[in-house]
Amino acid sequence: MDNISGKELKAMSMEELENLCGRLRTQIIGSVMENGGHLSSNLGVVELTVALHYVFDFPKDKIIFDVGHQCYAHKILSVRADKFSSLRRRGGLSGFPKRSESEFDCYNTGHAGTSISAALGIAKARDLSGENFNVIALIGDGSFNNGLVYEAFNSLKQLKTNILIILNDNGMSISPTVGSMHEYLEALKNDVEERYHKNRRAGIFERFGLEYDGVYNGNDVAAMISELKKVKEKLKDGSVILHVMTKKGKGYPLCEDDPEATHGIADSCSIGTTEYSEVLGEKLTELAASNDKIVAVTAAMTGSLGLSQFFEKYPDRSIDVGICEEHAAVLCAAMATQGYKPYYAVYSTFLQRSFDGIVLDICSQNLPVTICIDRAGVSGADGETHQGVFDLSFLTFIPNLTIAVPKDISEFAAMLEFSATYQGPLAIRYPRACSHEFGGNNDIEIGKWEISQKGDCSVAILACGERALTRALKSSGCIQESCGKAPAVINARFVKPLDYRMLEGLKESNIVTIEDNMLIGGFGSMIASYYSDSKRTVKIFAYKDKFIEHGNVEELMDSYGLDVNEIVAYIKTLI
Amino acid sequence: MDNISGKELKAMSMEELENLCGRLRTQIIGSVMENGGHLSSNLGVVELTVALHYVFDFPKDKIIFDVGHQCYAHKILSVRADKFSSLRRRGGLSGFPKRSESEFDCYNTGHAGTSISAALGIAKARDLSGENFNVIALIGDGSFNNGLVYEAFNSLKQLKTNILIILNDNGMSISPTVGSMHEYLEALKNDVEERYHKNRRAGIFERFGLEYDGVYNGNDVAAMISELKKVKEKLKDGSVILHVMTKKGKGYPLCEDDPEATHGIADSCSIGTTEYSEVLGEKLTELAASNDKIVAVTAAMTGSLGLSQFFEKYPDRSIDVGICEEHAAVLCAAMATQGYKPYYAVYSTFLQRSFDGIVLDICSQNLPVTICIDRAGVSGADGETHQGVFDLSFLTFIPNLTIAVPKDISEFAAMLEFSATYQGPLAIRYPRACSHEFGGNNDIEIGKWEISQKGDCSVAILACGERALTRALKSSGCIQESCGKAPAVINARFVKPLDYRMLEGLKESNIVTIEDNMLIGGFGSMIASYYSDSKRTVKIFAYKDKFIEHGNVEELMDSYGLDVNEIVAYIKTLI
Repeated sequence: MDNISGKELKAMSMEELENLCGRLRTQIIGSVMENGGHLSSNLGVVELTVALHYVFDFPKDKIIFDVGHQCYAHKILSVRADKFSSLRRRGGLSGFPKRSESEFDCYNTGHAGTSISAALGIAKARDLSGENFNVIALIGDGSFNNGLVYEAFNSLKQLKTNILIILNDNGMSISPTVGSMHEYLEALKNDVEERYHKNRRAGIFERFGLEYDGVYNGNDVAAMISELKKVKEKLKDGSVILHVMTKKGKGYPLCEDDPEATHGIADSCSIGTTEYSEVLGEKLTELAASNDKIVAVTAAMTGSLGLSQFFEKYPDRSIDVGICEEHAAVLCAAMATQGYKPYYAVYSTFLQRSFDGIVLDICSQNLPVTICIDRAGVSGADGETHQGVFDLSFLTFIPNLTIAVPKDISEFAAMLEFSATYQGPLAIRYPRACSHEFGGNNDIEIGKWEISQKGDCSVAILACGERALTRALKSSGCIQESCGKAPAVINARFVKPLDYRMLEGLKESNIVTIEDNMLIGGFGSMIASYYSDSKRTVKIFAYKDKFIEHGNVEELMDSYGLDVNEIVAYIKTLI
Repeated sequence: MDNISGKELKAMSMEELENLCGRLRTQIIGSVMENGGHLSSNLGVVELTVALHYVFDFPKDKIIFDVGHQCYAHKILSVRADKFSSLRRRGGLSGFPKRSESEFDCYNTGHAGTSISAALGIAKARDLSGENFNVIALIGDGSFNNGLVYEAFNSLKQLKTNILIILNDNGMSISPTVGSMHEYLEALKNDVEERYHKNRRAGIFERFGLEYDGVYNGNDVAAMISELKKVKEKLKDGSVILHVMTKKGKGYPLCEDDPEATHGIADSCSIGTTEYSEVLGEKLTELAASNDKIVAVTAAMTGSLGLSQFFEKYPDRSIDVGICEEHAAVLCAAMATQGYKPYYAVYSTFLQRSFDGIVLDICSQNLPVTICIDRAGVSGADGETHQGVFDLSFLTFIPNLTIAVPKDISEFAAMLEFSATYQGPLAIRYPRACSHEFGGNNDIEIGKWEISQKGDCSVAILACGERALTRALKSSGCIQESCGKAPAVINARFVKPLDYRMLEGLKESNIVTIEDNMLIGGFGSMIASYYSDSKRTVKIFAYKDKFIEHGNVEELMDSYGLDVNEIVAYIKTLI
């Protein structure tokens, strides 16, 4: 598809606009099938996006996409159609809004619930500067569960500024949306009496200073244009929430039928076969059979965390709180005070939201909550906002917390066995998929590492997790080949506590560490600190101090600090 | 006051109960005046607490105190009256609920908004175990702004469990409560028509599955007993929110007149004279006069952060969002995208709530937001939940972020000057009060340290911040005295970026680092990592991997890792 200017779009007839929607869908499906990405959320908002571009004047007007995983049609319509086939590829278009990519992207998003706060900040700045443009937050009903939305609502009147919130209601987070706000939205959609009362008296939204306007069919481009025109007028007098219904996956039968499964389409460059999430689901379901204190808690992504089976088998002991990571952490801590054994499963990047709850609620109370951290390390094509490369750095310094990193899925299963009787806070971090099983022993004992390979030179490589161990063994192999001797390779399966006995035993060796995490504050830094007052050298291979953009996982790992060639070259200088 | 058993209390007449309230007030005022602590919040809930102990059966029934700064009467009434004079002293009673202290404290709190999530977790566990007791969350209207409350509300129906929420409405956070939820509560209190409608149709709370009951005078013990008895019955059928009005500071004229100033009474062992917050207020007000892009954002503690003057002088550029630290961070980032220069002032401990916003909204977008981190380091008598000892550890690994740590208030003022034209994300962390001015130069240049004292031996001490520099110079003095030569002392005023040129220059020295932060992931760890592949020794003096309980600041600093004697003893081994 060629680039279309705003002027060209605004000159189109309804028929041409409907046609355009069809072409957008085709282009989105084509690129996502090729490069992976968010399919069903983007298909759902095609008509809405066309209508927005028809009625508003971007980039003068500003639109913030909550989460940002529904911005594809917007990208195509804002002078990026010709680049769209590069979506999610390194150096190509990001799958999320990026200020650095286009002036049409005014605010970067990635995690749920920030759009209304961001819209308020932009609108407040506009007012202070005496400028005149519209600010729009486009947010799904899943994000609507997040506490940040409420915090923003709560300060809307106080800030005395006008914004438009478009509530894109498709009944789904990644999992189906849960909670009372969802119920309320359903009532507004389905209950005539509710709407009648609503029109007579202030509802929840009016309390927060928003004029409520809904419900409209967001997949009808003509209706959307007509409503948005009216809303644009209303915005001169105050803030408006426009409630539209869209069909997630609209126009592509596979997606319409199973929007959860097609929320994210994996790119063809994904590595590994068996997903760690499958092992979590199977093992936890098995453990729960003999331990009725085990409960599972997720934040709106039960399926992708592997827990559908558990949720089906133990509905009473399964809680999906919606996109509420703070609440999830506190809820787990509280259940643990009563003798329960909660497993909080979450993607590494979203765990950032639970930080305060992990520090205070879980760890300062020293409660036996197990945090299962999925998609840890470089996660690839989703880019900056989704890389799981910070978790070791934001967990290692929390007292009472034990941190385990499995070398493969078998060891992960063994760690889950271990966790069932472990009496304190425990975090287990793992990438999406396992590409190799290493064998060896899986006898998990707290703070004990495994010697994966004995060495015959003065170097020991401490590898933290599957990806690191793969690189360590590969490096060792190269060195064996060229030098005739090889470093020892150690599976450092606990980042906290460290295996102090083994570290003492290594006092004659030069140490090399490898990890799929930031260098600052990670595993290698802990080793460097441990040996800091001795004359030992520790060389840390971990990620440079930069945000990691979207791209192929292996390529990104190599460029940001884990290149085997560099590891080999360094070790050769020691031998 | 002697310990009173629940049985004794339940046998008292109304007159005796009123009498008891008087004695509780006297004891609370006495201990707080002696040991410091939260005065007005505790005085406000005396009658409510007595009524709760009269009607409910603790510890079988569970009560969670939101924030926890209003639990003094509860502590006195739960077999701790005889220990109450030890309040907030090391080894004595904590000023917050502590499970380790008493079975009457079922859940530790410290940060706002966790109580409803915690109550839900405990109630859900109770239901799963088939037990039978009541679970109560006591929460103030200030905490009610926090997004966590909404997240918990949103999952209340879904969890199918019954809890009692007591909304203790005194119109105050630490600052007066702001926001639309506050307006709604005011309407419920003051507007007869509102209450009339409320009783006829579902309001906000009913939407979330709560029966609303209010408004009652929480300072009337007889009325409270009568209402709580009725509510206890209702709890058999569902969850209830009981809205009570109390007077913050009730019974003590000084507090009633100025509850913000008497929210926290400083303990007599506080160190330092001029508060950093005063400097922030003065300097920022001055800078804002010539820079109309400067805005100040706080989360419900404008006064204690020193910003009252700024807020008065520049109301349009001042935003107190209420206890919404996540929202504050996003709002700042968004304003910065529009050319504004936001200063987000916050206590170190509460900044934990903004973590995800700092990583993604502020730093991944590389926006010029300045985070002014007050009460950094050991903060003393408030204990585990309020020590500001984690911030360096959770900030150092965030790309794009510059971190500055002033040696004293003059240098802090100079850093604020520097910040006004700095174009990226910047964090400045400082303790509450400055006890000493060091002189020297205050020419702030990014990543440049200051040599505070040239040495004449092979040791260099890198000190990060006022408290560290004080200890470094003291240690150096002791060594000079006993060894006749002294280490160099360096004011490491930037933790990020480090002064790499100076670090290169120190390659002949043994390095000692001192910081008022956790050892893991802090300043010393960065230095250890920097030198890790050389044969240099780095000895890190920082806090051990434990939560730091309440007590005197200097004593805690000494016991947890910054004892000058230990520093001196170590350095002597090097000379």
